[in-house]
Amino acid sequence: MENFRFDVATDIRFGKDRWDELPEVLNQFGKNILLVYGGGSIKKNGVYQNIMSRLQEHDFNVTELSGVEPNPRIETVRKGIALCHENQIDVILPVGGGSTIDCAKVIGAGVFYEGDPWDLVIKKANVGKVLPLVTVLTLAATGSEMNRGAVISNPKTNQKLGLGGWEMLPKVSFLDPTTTFTVPKNQTAAGSADIFSHLTENYFKRTAGTDIQDFVAEGIFRTVIKNCPIALKYPDDYDARANLMWASTLALNGLTGSGKTGAWSCHPIEHELSAFYDITHGVGLAILTPRWMNYALNEETEEKFAQFARNVWGIQESVNHLAAKEGIQKTYDYFKACGIPMTLPEVGIDETKFSLMAEQAVKHSQIATDAYVPLDEQAVEKILRECLTESNYL
Amino acid sequence: MENFRFDVATDIRFGKDRWDELPEVLNQFGKNILLVYGGGSIKKNGVYQNIMSRLQEHDFNVTELSGVEPNPRIETVRKGIALCHENQIDVILPVGGGSTIDCAKVIGAGVFYEGDPWDLVIKKANVGKVLPLVTVLTLAATGSEMNRGAVISNPKTNQKLGLGGWEMLPKVSFLDPTTTFTVPKNQTAAGSADIFSHLTENYFKRTAGTDIQDFVAEGIFRTVIKNCPIALKYPDDYDARANLMWASTLALNGLTGSGKTGAWSCHPIEHELSAFYDITHGVGLAILTPRWMNYALNEETEEKFAQFARNVWGIQESVNHLAAKEGIQKTYDYFKACGIPMTLPEVGIDETKFSLMAEQAVKHSQIATDAYVPLDEQAVEKILRECLTESNYL
Repeated sequence: MENFRFDVATDIRFGKDRWDELPEVLNQFGKNILLVYGGGSIKKNGVYQNIMSRLQEHDFNVTELSGVEPNPRIETVRKGIALCHENQIDVILPVGGGSTIDCAKVIGAGVFYEGDPWDLVIKKANVGKVLPLVTVLTLAATGSEMNRGAVISNPKTNQKLGLGGWEMLPKVSFLDPTTTFTVPKNQTAAGSADIFSHLTENYFKRTAGTDIQDFVAEGIFRTVIKNCPIALKYPDDYDARANLMWASTLALNGLTGSGKTGAWSCHPIEHELSAFYDITHGVGLAILTPRWMNYALNEETEEKFAQFARNVWGIQESVNHLAAKEGIQKTYDYFKACGIPMTLPEVGIDETKFSLMAEQAVKHSQIATDAYVPLDEQAVEKILRECLTESNYL
Repeated sequence: MENFRFDVATDIRFGKDRWDELPEVLNQFGKNILLVYGGGSIKKNGVYQNIMSRLQEHDFNVTELSGVEPNPRIETVRKGIALCHENQIDVILPVGGGSTIDCAKVIGAGVFYEGDPWDLVIKKANVGKVLPLVTVLTLAATGSEMNRGAVISNPKTNQKLGLGGWEMLPKVSFLDPTTTFTVPKNQTAAGSADIFSHLTENYFKRTAGTDIQDFVAEGIFRTVIKNCPIALKYPDDYDARANLMWASTLALNGLTGSGKTGAWSCHPIEHELSAFYDITHGVGLAILTPRWMNYALNEETEEKFAQFARNVWGIQESVNHLAAKEGIQKTYDYFKACGIPMTLPEVGIDETKFSLMAEQAVKHSQIATDAYVPLDEQAVEKILRECLTESNYL
């Protein structure tokens, strides 16, 4: 196990009927609020009204930034920063999923940076001070509600890049599972695939002696595997939604990744798919994951893949290589059963840009050297090619 | 799943060779340090010297309180409070296991309470402000390094009681697995039994829909089960010690208990054993746990006990009741294989005070109403009686 620092001081308020806590929480930081949200689903499910009635009652000055994109764009960040300056914003209140929260994080950082915020995304400048963030999560997926990362897209340059900053950690996050009752099936499935992928990225690393991280991850994997199908069938099953929501947070708050080193594999490739085609992040990850697993399976890695197959999927097969293959197949079948389109053509992507995306994936990350199994451009292209048709690993 | 707040802002510095971080961490709080420790093992293994050399080099004023008991006593707390007042202490630095940290927590609370600190333990007064705590953990066991609880004994009244306070959460905790290389076998085993018991107490609760808490707990159970025997055989196996150490923290930082309600079962009974006989906490818990499990096993609970047997112990048996019995036997055999004395007579306890201890256990806790299976005095006495001889559950 590697040394690590675990300092994740987000104050999580988990559960239903907690709206009345919001004014007191926000009051700690000030009266001028930037409310950030996406396409307006929070107006349809009543979350917007629940929040606004409390804010008005307690005399907050609310500035709104709506229309944050599913892959949040740097132009929207710029717009948010301008609103913060114009309205002397004290605290940012993103209400939505990871896209909205990520956008808010970079707005909060950009307020204290004199140059263009894209500099922060491409690491031309470091994230320093950040406006306080209080988040209201309405989608179980990215874990952004309890971590220091964000991902921002620049459609003009076909770039989708991650960044991080110590102060980008939300101060308080409200996690009310009932706000996810109205999340459509496809987004519920894609969000669950995103959680699954965060676990996968941290689980398959080269660091030895990490039983606790891995065994805990196996428990979160099993939580997602059991509860996503329930939520798809019964969208207002509170416990299924609660388990998915807390799983999203714990999968990426440092619990499963601290003490391990190495680069992620599927996320850098997916970022290129989304950068060039603007597809749903979780769908891209679900398509890539089993193909990546099959590519990464070799004599050195088969023991870990067999552990995954046995402890996550309950596979009894005693031969490692065969167990591993069964685990990969189970993963593929699971995503498919959740209704996720499992080939790239189904989401409108053909091979035209494979070599360009492979080049960018390697350029924008450390997968060529630090991934679980190093991936060069040829490897990435091979994985992408496997995504053109249905797969079978048995 | 119940509503919960998860706000565990301890800054964990995990790993080896981090002593140089200590001065900067302490400087945030002030120059006057109360160094709290136990019987002096930290002088034998070099931890004391590692700390003192940094503190002297950076001009800290160090007051020492040594000799904290394995079941820390209220007299020691009183002594610590007096030292804080005399030396205008800014920050308390407990170096040791849970006993030392618990003692430091109540000293820190007592400094701001005008009456006798025993009032805080018996809840005659509430814990309010607490001096900042920076801990150096040297024993994987209680989880006190990342939670808001403490347990204090009063030998004059044969009481061992738990208390909690929001500000009793350590600000920073250093977790260096190498400091546990010299922990003797019996303490390594007892500490692991304590971790195991914290998981058990939270796992067996009546709240429904808590997959994530339970599946994560199963992962931590498996971490302890795998790594304690390695640490017993190879005391300086870094990864085994690291896994146990992080397991101790995660077992009781809210991760496995948040979202569930109900009283613990074995701890209140063990507190009476330690209050009357001053035995090692973890040993008392190991003796009690399988007997409690067997008592609590019934038609209503057998499904959960079977889940425990299958997911923690890998038992394949498909009949719930039989699987449950196998799981209980595995638990018993495991503690025994770790070298823990598994009957009360082996630790010098006979039946003389069973009825008195049963009465006190019920009086000092909510086990009669809120435990997983409610336990009245007769039930507690029955469990204690089962601890007089070896047990077999198959």
